[in-house]
Amino acid sequence: MCRWMAWHGQPVLLDELLFKTQHGLVDQSLHSRMGAETTNGDGFGIGWYGIGEGPGVYHSVLPAWGDANLRHLAAHIAAPLFLSHVRATSGTAIQETNCHPFAHGRWLFVHNGLIDEFPVLRRELMLGVEPKLFADIQGSTDFEVLFHLALTFGLEEDPVRALECAVGHVEDAGRRHGVEFPFQGSIGVSDGETLWAVRYSSEGRSRSLFISGDAQALRALHPGNPRIQRLRDDDRLILSEPLADLPGFWREIPEATAVTVRRGGVLEQQPFVPRLAAEPAFAS
Amino acid sequence: MCRWMAWHGQPVLLDELLFKTQHGLVDQSLHSRMGAETTNGDGFGIGWYGIGEGPGVYHSVLPAWGDANLRHLAAHIAAPLFLSHVRATSGTAIQETNCHPFAHGRWLFVHNGLIDEFPVLRRELMLGVEPKLFADIQGSTDFEVLFHLALTFGLEEDPVRALECAVGHVEDAGRRHGVEFPFQGSIGVSDGETLWAVRYSSEGRSRSLFISGDAQALRALHPGNPRIQRLRDDDRLILSEPLADLPGFWREIPEATAVTVRRGGVLEQQPFVPRLAAEPAFAS
Amino acid sequence: MCRWMAWHGQPVLLDELLFKTQHGLVDQSLHSRMGAETTNGDGFGIGWYGIGEGPGVYHSVLPAWGDANLRHLAAHIAAPLFLSHVRATSGTAIQETNCHPFAHGRWLFVHNGLIDEFPVLRRELMLGVEPKLFADIQGSTDFEVLFHLALTFGLEEDPVRALECAVGHVEDAGRRHGVEFPFQGSIGVSDGETLWAVRYSSEGRSRSLFISGDAQALRALHPGNPRIQRLRDDDRLILSEPLADLPGFWREIPEATAVTVRRGGVLEQQPFVPRLAAEPAFAS
Amino acid sequence: MCRWMAWHGQPVLLDELLFKTQHGLVDQSLHSRMGAETTNGDGFGIGWYGIGEGPGVYHSVLPAWGDANLRHLAAHIAAPLFLSHVRATSGTAIQETNCHPFAHGRWLFVHNGLIDEFPVLRRELMLGVEPKLFADIQGSTDFEVLFHLALTFGLEEDPVRALECAVGHVEDAGRRHGVEFPFQGSIGVSDGETLWAVRYSSEGRSRSLFISGDAQALRALHPGNPRIQRLRDDDRLILSEPLADLPGFWREIPEATAVTVRRGGVLEQQPFVPRLAAEPAFAS
Repeated sequence: MCRWMAWHGQPVLLDELLFKTQHGLVDQSLHSRMGAETTNGDGFGIGWYGIGEGPGVYHSVLPAWGDANLRHLAAHIAAPLFLSHVRATSGTAIQETNCHPFAHGRWLFVHNGLIDEFPVLRRELMLGVEPKLFADIQGSTDFEVLFHLALTFGLEEDPVRALECAVGHVEDAGRRHGVEFPFQGSIGVSDGETLWAVRYSSEGRSRSLFISGDAQALRALHPGNPRIQRLRDDDRLILSEPLADLPGFWREIPEATAVTVRRGGVLEQQPFVPRLAAEPAFAS
Repeated sequence: MCRWMAWHGQPVLLDELLFKTQHGLVDQSLHSRMGAETTNGDGFGIGWYGIGEGPGVYHSVLPAWGDANLRHLAAHIAAPLFLSHVRATSGTAIQETNCHPFAHGRWLFVHNGLIDEFPVLRRELMLGVEPKLFADIQGSTDFEVLFHLALTFGLEEDPVRALECAVGHVEDAGRRHGVEFPFQGSIGVSDGETLWAVRYSSEGRSRSLFISGDAQALRALHPGNPRIQRLRDDDRLILSEPLADLPGFWREIPEATAVTVRRGGVLEQQPFVPRLAAEPAFAS
Repeated sequence: MCRWMAWHGQPVLLDELLFKTQHGLVDQSLHSRMGAETTNGDGFGIGWYGIGEGPGVYHSVLPAWGDANLRHLAAHIAAPLFLSHVRATSGTAIQETNCHPFAHGRWLFVHNGLIDEFPVLRRELMLGVEPKLFADIQGSTDFEVLFHLALTFGLEEDPVRALECAVGHVEDAGRRHGVEFPFQGSIGVSDGETLWAVRYSSEGRSRSLFISGDAQALRALHPGNPRIQRLRDDDRLILSEPLADLPGFWREIPEATAVTVRRGGVLEQQPFVPRLAAEPAFAS
Repeated sequence: MCRWMAWHGQPVLLDELLFKTQHGLVDQSLHSRMGAETTNGDGFGIGWYGIGEGPGVYHSVLPAWGDANLRHLAAHIAAPLFLSHVRATSGTAIQETNCHPFAHGRWLFVHNGLIDEFPVLRRELMLGVEPKLFADIQGSTDFEVLFHLALTFGLEEDPVRALECAVGHVEDAGRRHGVEFPFQGSIGVSDGETLWAVRYSSEGRSRSLFISGDAQALRALHPGNPRIQRLRDDDRLILSEPLADLPGFWREIPEATAVTVRRGGVLEQQPFVPRLAAEPAFAS
């Protein structure tokens, strides 16, 4: 049900983390170890903040492991902040508009998980999206709708609170339709300056999510490893499954938690508590 | 802004009409003579009633002139009734779920034209779709929504009336949003038994649409033309632009007109009068 | 390294064997049990003898499990003889011209395996192809070259002998270039009347290949299973991995063996002995 | 029969020249004015020298006008030297390996035109390619073979001479096979430092090719045009058709001419004289 990875730190070529590592995201597209499925071959996407205005994105319906363009692009695009995603569809069409990251202005959004019984809930959830954002929904996935709900609830002002309202809205709608555990997933969001990540599920059994730890300690432990020596203290990785060639570097993000990574690698962590927005959603 | 063609008659290999004719639909994808654009290269689709349950469909995002699979499939699929479509997008994504024909149960639907200011109207029009059909909308085009509005208004019981209600609903919504001419287009619909076609635009200047005429007279005129001699009296073609190798065979379908082709080539024609359904649409 | 399946018997809708069975070929694209890789997601193809002249083919670069068109086509195309193939590339490009079945006139060809060190041998092997066939090679795979070598050595007159000469040519070229085990694989070939299958590898450890057995006995064993009761005595399946819902129906084709299935389910089996053609290959 | 464009000068975002200009290359994909065809919709490619080692490339089988990724990439990739190409196939497959620019090490290669009767000549021309380069030919086009012939004849040491030998080799082979005018086209080549362009045809009626002129004079003529004021003296554009929004800036490259653009905008021009290499080609 998808895997994703986000980098916030020194500028790197994307292929450093997508291809030139052990069990990087492209390997996870073919051999996921912790995901709901082994294979995440239903398209992929990358989004990065580099040259040009706002984020660049590249989406493809091919499996990440087999897309010749991805190898070329990843070797020739560098960024201090980027998100990437490999997809395993739970039924919606395999098309570029269903590939993450979704973009809106300066914002990028990736997700791993699902809204349970989405076909039942889709209409009500789409009605909750601010009308002037409605026409921006180009695909058919649950998480493009969630992204636009979060935008509706103020993602650009207070991302964690907006995500809490969006997930709260989904849980509320789900429960009214008899869905026991409406939300499952991990989310990554960025505006190009800051990176936010959320791990949450209605059931309390969320998809795996990890964050990189203390680069200084890791460098001290592996003085002879040039790859590890290149890591700086303010480099941060958040990902569905740890890279295998940086052992001892990962800690699991707890259940029901939001993490914020600011420039300089500054880390904040807070409980993630879905809630109903004070203002009613648009279609109520 | 798209071109389409429908066949109702003796079983034929699809390539007889797509490739082995002068100015067939595939040629129109590259060199349209009467369309709003010369090039209709933003994907295409075919839908047919042959072997198997319900209609078969094949969609591709490639231009029809360049898709190797289309040549093979058209040479190996035969049907007594089929619709085909080449697309020129007015802005929505080039993806298979935006390619016509759209299918629902036994029904196929193609369209050439547009709903003006669709981004402004999209939310209201989607709310007019019966909730249990809402999740079936997989793409982002105006005409997939129109098709589901027609289904909402009873397409499966009374197709012409349902289309009148759907177009009436679009015009009503459009005018409330200040859109002068909300609807423009020609529509083809079939359930596998009967073929319906509509030519209508709010402005009264509709896209071109033609129907084939009297095969008996044509055969008498061209006794030495084997292609024409193969035409039977009950063969009927409806298409955006006439085939060039069957001269004298075409008549233009008038403005604001619905045509019905039944088995045996029986033809009915009636005025097409958009109207508001007695029952309010779902989101009113 | 690919999986394939061939059917020779009563006309069936393709999806009966691709989708509506346990561990059919589409399932093998995602969860192969006996292949060199679990995932065969680098494109696929079907080729069938039905309506129209010669075989129809459909190729796609998407994984078979995710191609919406395949579901539609398989449910609406029927044939008494068809081949299908799911691909796991060993490095050559993921493109339709590299997808099996390859077609030439009435002939279809599928393969699972590889020519070892093909980049080293490619030039010499292509020079062995009859010059007038050279320009027909549209892709970059080892097995499109093998197919054209077999055509060069008389596939259309004596298929098994031509394949023996083609494989013998590959082994000879390979050994001259220091390749220990040049050929590995299973091959399926048909002209629309007869189906030939070969299992062979230079090393004597060939990819798995199975053929269906005695339908009469199977029906007697499972009187209450309607799926099995539909099988006729002259239905024959050859495939890389057995279907799970027809237990007791399969026998492994032995190493270095060619099997011929004629109309009526008549089965012949003979040793497969690679040899050098009496006539030198073209580039010698 | 294709259109292309090359930029050598100050670093620019690719979309400045692909989209944000009048009659840029993407517009030429849909509305070519000087090409053999109006539509160049059979795929496209870009190649650039920016971040990372060697050139980056991106190829797509979609028309350039409709590829969503191209818009994003062009707005987020900058380079002081890049080539781009839109394709109209003369019959070879529409696949990424047939899209220009072709890449080899630091080298990029684009072409507009054709080798006449290529199916007849293909085998002999491929045999002329240095054997160790043979396996690098991944597609089926005439110009990937020409590129590898040029590499065989020393493109990396003396590009113009190597192209003269490659074209001479094609003309020689063609004439031996009774082809009156074997070569037609314009070629762009770069190693990331220097840009070479050739306009030549056996018939002496070559495809159009233009080079930008004196930026200083143009700026003086249009003091109020900010787009023109941004042009520097060392900026050079070579392209199949002039951009419409820089009038008076273009001069046609003469027949049978090679142009060299070095850093600083330094321009050299010389006759292009196809010749037979002193060394026989490999397959002679």
